Amino acid sequence: MTSTAKRNTGQPTGPIADTRLRRLPERGSKDFDLACAIIDDARIAHVGFTLGGQPYVVPMAVARDDRHLFLHGSVVSRLMKNLAKGLPCCVTVTHLDGLVLARSAFHSSMNYRSVMVFGSATVVTDAGEKVRGLNVLTDQLLPGRRAELRESTRKELNATTLLRLPLEQFSVKTRDAPPDDPANETQVPIWAGVVPLTLKAGKPEAAPDMPAGIALPRYLKSR
Amino acid sequence: MTSTAKRNTGQPTGPIADTRLRRLPERGSKDFDLACAIIDDARIAHVGFTLGGQPYVVPMAVARDDRHLFLHGSVVSRLMKNLAKGLPCCVTVTHLDGLVLARSAFHSSMNYRSVMVFGSATVVTDAGEKVRGLNVLTDQLLPGRRAELRESTRKELNATTLLRLPLEQFSVKTRDAPPDDPANETQVPIWAGVVPLTLKAGKPEAAPDMPAGIALPRYLKSR
Repeated sequence: MTSTAKRNTGQPTGPIADTRLRRLPERGSKDFDLACAIIDDARIAHVGFTLGGQPYVVPMAVARDDRHLFLHGSVVSRLMKNLAKGLPCCVTVTHLDGLVLARSAFHSSMNYRSVMVFGSATVVTDAGEKVRGLNVLTDQLLPGRRAELRESTRKELNATTLLRLPLEQFSVKTRDAPPDDPANETQVPIWAGVVPLTLKAGKPEAAPDMPAGIALPRYLKSR
Repeated sequence: MTSTAKRNTGQPTGPIADTRLRRLPERGSKDFDLACAIIDDARIAHVGFTLGGQPYVVPMAVARDDRHLFLHGSVVSRLMKNLAKGLPCCVTVTHLDGLVLARSAFHSSMNYRSVMVFGSATVVTDAGEKVRGLNVLTDQLLPGRRAELRESTRKELNATTLLRLPLEQFSVKTRDAPPDDPANETQVPIWAGVVPLTLKAGKPEAAPDMPAGIALPRYLKSR
């Protein structure tokens, strides 16, 4: 999958105490650029919030716009209505990059890149900004696609809630390494290493209702 | 990636009111077998819980054992300590299966399979059951691997917390279809369809500290 290049403008504001990494600090990073790269490589995030004491974790499309994340959904969805109230939320993006096969179950692991973003979302009400934000979401789904599509109608915009979440309080965790067995176990006769995993695009499948003679767009040709 | 076949034993207990799907009910299913298939195809879940009013969503290894999920982690991790207290949690498994390219941004979507499991975890304290549960986790990571590895030591077992969460209160949501444009838009000259996405395993990368002459195991040969 292609990453979209985005600009960064300096350093984030200080993370809150809750985002301190208490375990495995060598995997932790507050690096803003790394957080951006991980988010920009994603199509979906897992969005967590709490209602009546019950946590919910919902997969949603995500996109980054400089120092904010955009989320969107139907204005009538319970999820969007609750997030729009400014409930505290956690938006987590994870890429599973590999299975780490050590010589023991205990040292087996996974390679991954993950960002947790903490905060409260606000509704984007400005009409122009809403159009722009939804375009950012479509562009992150598939760069190049948005420019081919018609403008959204007033009715479509009214049916959609766009939320913005600051990318200020966040925590990055990654692992990208071979297995880390104790020295006295590396000589056992068991294959050890990493099985890399990648989300790969397959052959595009044309919609059954598409008229004949429409070529595959350029941005899908390398797939 | 290979799914592990697991057995199902009948129907789940009734879902709680909170798991009702209020939006897009055509994508909703309470079907236990479908939930099992989605979970069995996964390596990781996103685990949500709330501490001091702040939701957290953390990626973790997951495995299913009949009507339960297993999660594990270090006994000293804050995450495991809190989950072990029986905090309400939500464990969500999602597979992103495709980009759905409609003729408009509004009708664009994604194909996916997702399960949210709600409940409270309990610590597995029985020594034999703990060994078995950790083996289930290693087997779900990569079927065939566990049998090659040495037994875990007492020290390793004592350093690990194993949690069990009932697969009783859950909600399934999936989309698996071409774009669903309004009939009056299907004739516009824009390519429309689905770009399938699959998590693919690449060529295994041997650990730098592996002795020469160790063959790739059978369960990695098709990768």
